[in-house]
Amino acid sequence: MLLRGGLVLYGRDYKLTRADVLIEGDKIVEVKRNINKPADEVLDVSKSLVIPSFINAHTHSPMVILRGLAEDVPLMEWLQEYIWPVERKLRRKDVYWGSKLALIEMAHSGTSTFVDMYFHMEEIAKATEEVGLRAYLGYGMVDLDDEEKRKIEMRETEKLYEFIKKLDSSKVNFILAPHAPYTCSFDCLRWVSEKSREWNSLVTIHLAETQDEIKIIREKYGKSPVDVLEDVGLLNEKLIAAHGIWLSDEDIRKISSAGATIAHCPASNMKLGSGVFPMKKALENNVNVALGTDGAASNNTLDILREMRLASLLQKVIHRDPSIVKSEDIFRMATLNGAKALGLKAGVIAEGYLADIAVIDLRKAHLLPVNSPLASIIFSARGGDVDTLIVGGEIVMLDSELLTVDEEKVIDKFLEVSVA
Amino acid sequence: MLLRGGLVLYGRDYKLTRADVLIEGDKIVEVKRNINKPADEVLDVSKSLVIPSFINAHTHSPMVILRGLAEDVPLMEWLQEYIWPVERKLRRKDVYWGSKLALIEMAHSGTSTFVDMYFHMEEIAKATEEVGLRAYLGYGMVDLDDEEKRKIEMRETEKLYEFIKKLDSSKVNFILAPHAPYTCSFDCLRWVSEKSREWNSLVTIHLAETQDEIKIIREKYGKSPVDVLEDVGLLNEKLIAAHGIWLSDEDIRKISSAGATIAHCPASNMKLGSGVFPMKKALENNVNVALGTDGAASNNTLDILREMRLASLLQKVIHRDPSIVKSEDIFRMATLNGAKALGLKAGVIAEGYLADIAVIDLRKAHLLPVNSPLASIIFSARGGDVDTLIVGGEIVMLDSELLTVDEEKVIDKFLEVSVA
Repeated sequence: MLLRGGLVLYGRDYKLTRADVLIEGDKIVEVKRNINKPADEVLDVSKSLVIPSFINAHTHSPMVILRGLAEDVPLMEWLQEYIWPVERKLRRKDVYWGSKLALIEMAHSGTSTFVDMYFHMEEIAKATEEVGLRAYLGYGMVDLDDEEKRKIEMRETEKLYEFIKKLDSSKVNFILAPHAPYTCSFDCLRWVSEKSREWNSLVTIHLAETQDEIKIIREKYGKSPVDVLEDVGLLNEKLIAAHGIWLSDEDIRKISSAGATIAHCPASNMKLGSGVFPMKKALENNVNVALGTDGAASNNTLDILREMRLASLLQKVIHRDPSIVKSEDIFRMATLNGAKALGLKAGVIAEGYLADIAVIDLRKAHLLPVNSPLASIIFSARGGDVDTLIVGGEIVMLDSELLTVDEEKVIDKFLEVSVA
Repeated sequence: MLLRGGLVLYGRDYKLTRADVLIEGDKIVEVKRNINKPADEVLDVSKSLVIPSFINAHTHSPMVILRGLAEDVPLMEWLQEYIWPVERKLRRKDVYWGSKLALIEMAHSGTSTFVDMYFHMEEIAKATEEVGLRAYLGYGMVDLDDEEKRKIEMRETEKLYEFIKKLDSSKVNFILAPHAPYTCSFDCLRWVSEKSREWNSLVTIHLAETQDEIKIIREKYGKSPVDVLEDVGLLNEKLIAAHGIWLSDEDIRKISSAGATIAHCPASNMKLGSGVFPMKKALENNVNVALGTDGAASNNTLDILREMRLASLLQKVIHRDPSIVKSEDIFRMATLNGAKALGLKAGVIAEGYLADIAVIDLRKAHLLPVNSPLASIIFSARGGDVDTLIVGGEIVMLDSELLTVDEEKVIDKFLEVSVA
């Protein structure tokens, strides 16, 4: 496949280059002007930006069903009065349709890859294969120190592992997903750590999201949540920890040395009033910071473009210093850093990288003029501006239309329940 | 004109109602189910939300030309090294095309009305009439205590006043626009105050945007910028003061008693690291708070939908309390409060109000399901979701296409300079 004549954000230093991009199989093989090689498919992208597609490093995709359900309420009320009661009633079918809607939304905002933690994950695997994105699916384990519950959670996790192994998909990947240090017992976390080594699996978890969590863990273990992860052997380069708001300087140093990733979720942290991720300290300590949307119930979208904008604006105002974080850093969080966390050679437009590509149509009033391409992407662009999405060399969306699934059918289904 | 079968956000309490909306001349005359009256034009809006269009209470529209020009740099460097040198070179033609691009962008994000402060305002008046939005145009006066400069600024302001009076347009309105208490002399501000009474004109100004400003004014006058405005007679219900970040409790009480409006600009305040508007105190004191985007150079968009989302998220995280501000309050800032500031009977879908209406097509993955219409608008919707815009009973945009101007011509012009 050949992307002809686009404005390519090339390489790790994001140099804007007018070039063709040649894709063979699932990889980018050549980026230069006027490539004269035969291609099965040629896309004219001469009025577009060609950029690496986004990686959503933390979400709960089926929670789109709960979008807007619990607004302007504190976290515990949000969970106990609104979210959990509805979640208890969710059936397999709901999870399937919810994740399908979520995947369509992610495609429209240029996301090719996402890390998901929920339940009925087999349904999300099905939706993922249908839509054609790249997923890391984890069953969210919560045992609350109950041995019976722990056995169920372990069984569910093993079942999912076997299911995805058997699926043998190029897009659907397994990830271990203990919910959090305060909802999982020490034994549960230790089991996850063992399985991570045995299965060579990535692990994702919620970490240091609220001050309450820090207090609970301190009372239970006499140490920080990061220390607990270290004790069970989870603090390593396989770990993707979501949020990381209430980290001490020592925690940040440990995360950095371990090579673990923080999935920063600014919208959710702001919406739930959880706090502000110490991005400056994390970057100074070379922590690998990726971006996530969290679930739509606390966001209320799955749009990494909005997440980049928020991530930057929040740090600038908190530090009262507009130079505190550069656009390059923010863009890297949404692309290369996510890829690094997942062990993917992706997140950059350059030869040898996965052909995970988003194309942004520049023919929009709010994107022009393009004085800085990175600023156009981070501060001006919005979800719908990505009109073409390529995942592993396959076109998932072209001219804003999904080629893989019947989007209208999904939309109509949810429109019906919305406006009856 | 009849909007048929939409989901109408009705009245001041935003009750979601399935209804028809009948428009006669520039007003909404009836809102109820199954209106059986003849109409020249009938729009089927059965899969859409029908809401009041937005009011951008503070912008500098031609600054879209400078979008992305100065990124991640502190305010003074931003102004001195980037913004001012370019602005000095801007010609009439640039201002015309810039504002035209800006107006198109505003239309696409559902804004019908905006308050603008810049120079070559006659060009913006022209663009406004062409695109068909409702504008309040002010020449930005800066005299820096220089008497010669003051005379020029007064003359420019008088010229604009006469120009707009003569134009006699239903859409283009005049506003006095002294730049700020620290860039305008006391005499200049007093002159503005006199003219405001003489011409019965609204006034807009930058106020308490940075801590530096507070310091400069304190050194010069021994009081706060709000006190200075009070002294010259500008602190009254005709005043729309942008930013209002560094207001004391006493300042807030004075603004409230005076009935003046604060145009809150969260994106710009965050991007420039200026600080956080004390929204909670302002609302507790019943200050009329409207929303503005500021210029695109410090935003980088003119999208009130994004501004609403930011305004809410910022307060929630700063107070670490998600219940600190309700969606109703935020939506009112973007609509009714702006109208109140401008003395317009607008910003609400109800009988007798101006037919300034935005229609949001709900057939989008990121908007569904609609568990809360206000949350869908504030937290999920993005600019492009407004597909129809009606200003004073006239359709400016239909199915995402501007009916008034050749949008493509403007886009191509700016695309050319962007990607040469």
